[in-house]
Amino acid sequence: MAPLSPSTAMQPTVIAPSILSANFAKLGEEVDAVLAAGADWVHFDVMDNHYVPNLTIGPMVCEALRKHGVTAPIDVHLMVEPVDRIVPDFAKAGASMITFHPEASRHVHRTVQLIKSHGCQAGLVLNPGTPIEVLDWVLDELDMVLLMSVNPGFGGQAFIPSSLDKLRAVRTMIDRSGRPIRLEIDGGVKADNIAEIAAAGADTFVAGSAIFNAPGVAEHGYSDVIARMKQAVESVR
Amino acid sequence: MAPLSPSTAMQPTVIAPSILSANFAKLGEEVDAVLAAGADWVHFDVMDNHYVPNLTIGPMVCEALRKHGVTAPIDVHLMVEPVDRIVPDFAKAGASMITFHPEASRHVHRTVQLIKSHGCQAGLVLNPGTPIEVLDWVLDELDMVLLMSVNPGFGGQAFIPSSLDKLRAVRTMIDRSGRPIRLEIDGGVKADNIAEIAAAGADTFVAGSAIFNAPGVAEHGYSDVIARMKQAVESVR
Amino acid sequence: MAPLSPSTAMQPTVIAPSILSANFAKLGEEVDAVLAAGADWVHFDVMDNHYVPNLTIGPMVCEALRKHGVTAPIDVHLMVEPVDRIVPDFAKAGASMITFHPEASRHVHRTVQLIKSHGCQAGLVLNPGTPIEVLDWVLDELDMVLLMSVNPGFGGQAFIPSSLDKLRAVRTMIDRSGRPIRLEIDGGVKADNIAEIAAAGADTFVAGSAIFNAPGVAEHGYSDVIARMKQAVESVR
Amino acid sequence: MAPLSPSTAMQPTVIAPSILSANFAKLGEEVDAVLAAGADWVHFDVMDNHYVPNLTIGPMVCEALRKHGVTAPIDVHLMVEPVDRIVPDFAKAGASMITFHPEASRHVHRTVQLIKSHGCQAGLVLNPGTPIEVLDWVLDELDMVLLMSVNPGFGGQAFIPSSLDKLRAVRTMIDRSGRPIRLEIDGGVKADNIAEIAAAGADTFVAGSAIFNAPGVAEHGYSDVIARMKQAVESVR
Amino acid sequence: MAPLSPSTAMQPTVIAPSILSANFAKLGEEVDAVLAAGADWVHFDVMDNHYVPNLTIGPMVCEALRKHGVTAPIDVHLMVEPVDRIVPDFAKAGASMITFHPEASRHVHRTVQLIKSHGCQAGLVLNPGTPIEVLDWVLDELDMVLLMSVNPGFGGQAFIPSSLDKLRAVRTMIDRSGRPIRLEIDGGVKADNIAEIAAAGADTFVAGSAIFNAPGVAEHGYSDVIARMKQAVESVR
Amino acid sequence: MAPLSPSTAMQPTVIAPSILSANFAKLGEEVDAVLAAGADWVHFDVMDNHYVPNLTIGPMVCEALRKHGVTAPIDVHLMVEPVDRIVPDFAKAGASMITFHPEASRHVHRTVQLIKSHGCQAGLVLNPGTPIEVLDWVLDELDMVLLMSVNPGFGGQAFIPSSLDKLRAVRTMIDRSGRPIRLEIDGGVKADNIAEIAAAGADTFVAGSAIFNAPGVAEHGYSDVIARMKQAVESVR
Repeated sequence: MAPLSPSTAMQPTVIAPSILSANFAKLGEEVDAVLAAGADWVHFDVMDNHYVPNLTIGPMVCEALRKHGVTAPIDVHLMVEPVDRIVPDFAKAGASMITFHPEASRHVHRTVQLIKSHGCQAGLVLNPGTPIEVLDWVLDELDMVLLMSVNPGFGGQAFIPSSLDKLRAVRTMIDRSGRPIRLEIDGGVKADNIAEIAAAGADTFVAGSAIFNAPGVAEHGYSDVIARMKQAVESVR
Repeated sequence: MAPLSPSTAMQPTVIAPSILSANFAKLGEEVDAVLAAGADWVHFDVMDNHYVPNLTIGPMVCEALRKHGVTAPIDVHLMVEPVDRIVPDFAKAGASMITFHPEASRHVHRTVQLIKSHGCQAGLVLNPGTPIEVLDWVLDELDMVLLMSVNPGFGGQAFIPSSLDKLRAVRTMIDRSGRPIRLEIDGGVKADNIAEIAAAGADTFVAGSAIFNAPGVAEHGYSDVIARMKQAVESVR
Repeated sequence: MAPLSPSTAMQPTVIAPSILSANFAKLGEEVDAVLAAGADWVHFDVMDNHYVPNLTIGPMVCEALRKHGVTAPIDVHLMVEPVDRIVPDFAKAGASMITFHPEASRHVHRTVQLIKSHGCQAGLVLNPGTPIEVLDWVLDELDMVLLMSVNPGFGGQAFIPSSLDKLRAVRTMIDRSGRPIRLEIDGGVKADNIAEIAAAGADTFVAGSAIFNAPGVAEHGYSDVIARMKQAVESVR
Repeated sequence: MAPLSPSTAMQPTVIAPSILSANFAKLGEEVDAVLAAGADWVHFDVMDNHYVPNLTIGPMVCEALRKHGVTAPIDVHLMVEPVDRIVPDFAKAGASMITFHPEASRHVHRTVQLIKSHGCQAGLVLNPGTPIEVLDWVLDELDMVLLMSVNPGFGGQAFIPSSLDKLRAVRTMIDRSGRPIRLEIDGGVKADNIAEIAAAGADTFVAGSAIFNAPGVAEHGYSDVIARMKQAVESVR
Repeated sequence: MAPLSPSTAMQPTVIAPSILSANFAKLGEEVDAVLAAGADWVHFDVMDNHYVPNLTIGPMVCEALRKHGVTAPIDVHLMVEPVDRIVPDFAKAGASMITFHPEASRHVHRTVQLIKSHGCQAGLVLNPGTPIEVLDWVLDELDMVLLMSVNPGFGGQAFIPSSLDKLRAVRTMIDRSGRPIRLEIDGGVKADNIAEIAAAGADTFVAGSAIFNAPGVAEHGYSDVIARMKQAVESVR
Repeated sequence: MAPLSPSTAMQPTVIAPSILSANFAKLGEEVDAVLAAGADWVHFDVMDNHYVPNLTIGPMVCEALRKHGVTAPIDVHLMVEPVDRIVPDFAKAGASMITFHPEASRHVHRTVQLIKSHGCQAGLVLNPGTPIEVLDWVLDELDMVLLMSVNPGFGGQAFIPSSLDKLRAVRTMIDRSGRPIRLEIDGGVKADNIAEIAAAGADTFVAGSAIFNAPGVAEHGYSDVIARMKQAVESVR
């Protein structure tokens, strides 16, 4: 059970635009455009006004994207508490991956099994201050770990620098496990810091306004900014 | 302080399509179409997975409709608990009217004041089983009473017949108050029962699938069904 | 819709011993004995340490009674909060009637429907201080109203005298409805006050220690005390 | 059981200054001064940051007043949720009267008994929007009803005018009961509206800044304002 | 303070049948039989429908077993939240050991002291995903650590294999402490995997259906299966 | 980034009397006296009857001390849950330092930022049983770590001996960080154990009854006991 080298263990790069920064009046069109421009996944942020002080979008919106024709993976980040009741709704609505916060479930291992039993991949999300020991006894059951590099539920925050150390620490845990577990980062990711973030071990990148509000997208679309992000990631792998 | 006759007290008829039945992939277009077809308000159902077992849409979606150009009143029905924290968010996002359930606020009178202090109109919503005595000491502060004629948070329910008696009882209270308070009904309202509902005292009508999924809308749009609803209401006023 | 006379509306007398006063080490035998002695129903008190400060017995114990061969109606009184999640468990475990407290469910009308949809009869329970207006808009959906004549969750309390007035008030509501709704009473009911309670309108009587700890039961069993209770009730009907 | 006339049923006038408006750096001195100036009771507002969005003072401060030598009745208004756990603490700390909000206790009748079993008088508090039916089945157990004429937990609010109607309605209920139940009012009570409030049926008056911040108290103390309040009350009795 | 060898530190083997798998209609008889067949303790699973989605049995059932004549240790596993209120009830009802989940108490160290102050032994329970660091600063206060090898609150789950690693990790912590702390395992324990589990460090074994539903118990009773379990454990010590 | 030696990293000694042990009837005078006698800070214990089973004092009392003229740092220990809502109130009321428990906030890192954004210093408090890993990813953001050496919310407890080991462990973490983070201890600190506590790494010492109820304070004031505490600390630095 020798640790694999990071280059072996890391998964192919994924850029996952967060639709919280898209235009909800024409969401299907926005998602089509960003996927056509090279995005890999749709990142879907669910807030319930309890786990975080904001309320965003639920299963009906996810289902509408599937009915609209979206076939890319939909990566649902549950900022809700409790977690279990809404899992089947999102599975039925077309979620591919469901991640949740360990503080929001009394039975973390069971919630992971619940997600999988509904045919979705499962991941845990760590807030900036959450100890990584919460991964110790469930990592082998996970398909992804998501590190928050800002505090969830608020807009306009900058990337928290200590997240780089945390990425390295979790990357080591994943490599030691020898399992194909993704390491996703969310919060303040931009074209000009993504290389550094990738170098610290992330392989899956959520970006919201950095994509939807990037300079020039109104005229030229999202291809440029997504391409620049991917090149920056590849430059360090 | 003699009771006004219903015909004097009743407000002009309003048809308020619930966008929960619209296509969330092209919500702006859907709302534009239904308003162009004669709808008066946009009914906006907010569920938080706590007050009801479902999670729908929050302030960002409301704001997107305003940015898209919607100028009609947006009638926000909060099926959330607690209520106060999210009120300013919806006011800022462009809500015209905010209604909430008295069971969801420890301080009903204060929440009404809070909504008004943010420049919105305020209403209370009564579940099918909620006693009407909850209105006794706040009715004079309200702009609208919303009676649920199905249990909120679930789809596919039929109009609960005892709602007609409840409409009549609340209509009497409103008439006695002598104030211009709207009486809204939500749940199972259709073109073929709306006359009876109007006759019982409602002046503001929420309809979801009865409008968005009415026969023929794919070809002819929403004008026919909305016109039929309005005619049915007028026939009994 | 003229009000029926009480004698017409009242249901046949039911004596429902509360098994909280039975010996849990030999519950099957205890229940067999009390039913053989003339008891009509089994009253099953469920406490969750949240709605009341005590924790008693759950669905597994109900199911064990059914497997043991009990065929009499099992009348499950849920002193739990929230209510909905545990309803299907009790239905599956063999409950005949499920009653709950309106304070413990945000959606009283819906919980009643949920109970019925699982094939059980449904009732509401009113604490000593609960206003009877909570019945106004759901009474027609109910199979039983249970009035607590002590505060639930505690032992050794005496019958609260004002419960007689409350029985009369609810009896009037039931008679006016013209529907076959039972009126059950629970708390401090004994052979020497049951006639007065029946005269106030109750038709279904829960008794715990008054039956299981009645003088002489160790030698002669439960027949005498149950017979005396029934005779006292009949004397006033 | 003919209703007593208000003049018979009403209790002797009580002025109860709320120490929330006193100087907490020298609370003993402040309380001594206001009692010496003619105040009858000490009104003690307890907020827990849950039932209301503020946190004030607890049992230790009550006990300190007793140790300081205060012998006047201390009237503890619990704006806390849940209620039962803190009742014995306040009884032990020297409370004379304990009032609580019915929304904050699942078992209102039991909480009343709990307060009395610890040797205190017991009362219920009604928020501005709370229906008076909550009193129907517990009024006979109460020593006082407190009507809030502002929303609790906030400063600087004006007396809500509809409180006068509510006072009259509760006064009628108390008179009908024939029992010596006090009717207290709290919120926006001042020397220039207290006569009108007394005329509507209140006999016990909480005032905070109207006493502690009255014009001239820095030079002349609290006697004048308290005397004016009492005279105004007597003028209408 | 050199670490003791496991063979020194480990406590005598205990087999603790979980009465959740017994027949609740004749619980006294069932418990008598299993104890007579060689079981050492009675394992008593308490669920409150909040910490886990099930409700089982409370203090009254425990007390009934003591009154029935059970003198063996009763090992109460509290799957309840919060914990403190019910501890004295179980102590009074005859519990010997009380274990609880650290996630269910804000003040883990204090809850341990509370249990001991009522004359019971105290233990902590770790869910499959719970980090073992929760033991770091309270281990020296404990009489037992219980590791869940399935997720509590559900039936029919298989032993989670990573529990063996976790047993070894906690065994090391206990051995280092030099204190006589039991290490109990609960979930999917059977005659054919108990040796492996014992070898990983457990000394106290909960088994439910593996005992009560073992093949042949209807004819021959529980002696065989318990004897086989004990032999398997001894084979590796 | 070599670890600094403790003598370099440790902050100047601070004695912070807890005003929970002062006389609330003359709090300003008490605080003046203890500060004049050499105390450095005022320690302000806030309990909300939810995070701990007691309710003490809130922002108004803090503000009263500032208005009274107290200029020393006020060190507010929030034993409340949730935390965020009350932070601005305490900042406005004059708090210098605000500490909270990580179990009481879903978003520990964000709450720290919130406190700082209101111009206060921020700290985390660890209960006796709380793992120190909760500090791993936020330590660099903190101005202080407070270790509880008794369980918060109760009086009359003795210093928990294992707190010395915990102090040493956190002292090592702080020294490694190279940042000027205070290490405060609260619970059972007295003149005769403070040297040992200081030697284990604490630099900031809360004491309640050890100061306010020290022998001889009635005649000679607090100078002696505070001087003895400071001397004991200096003897080991």
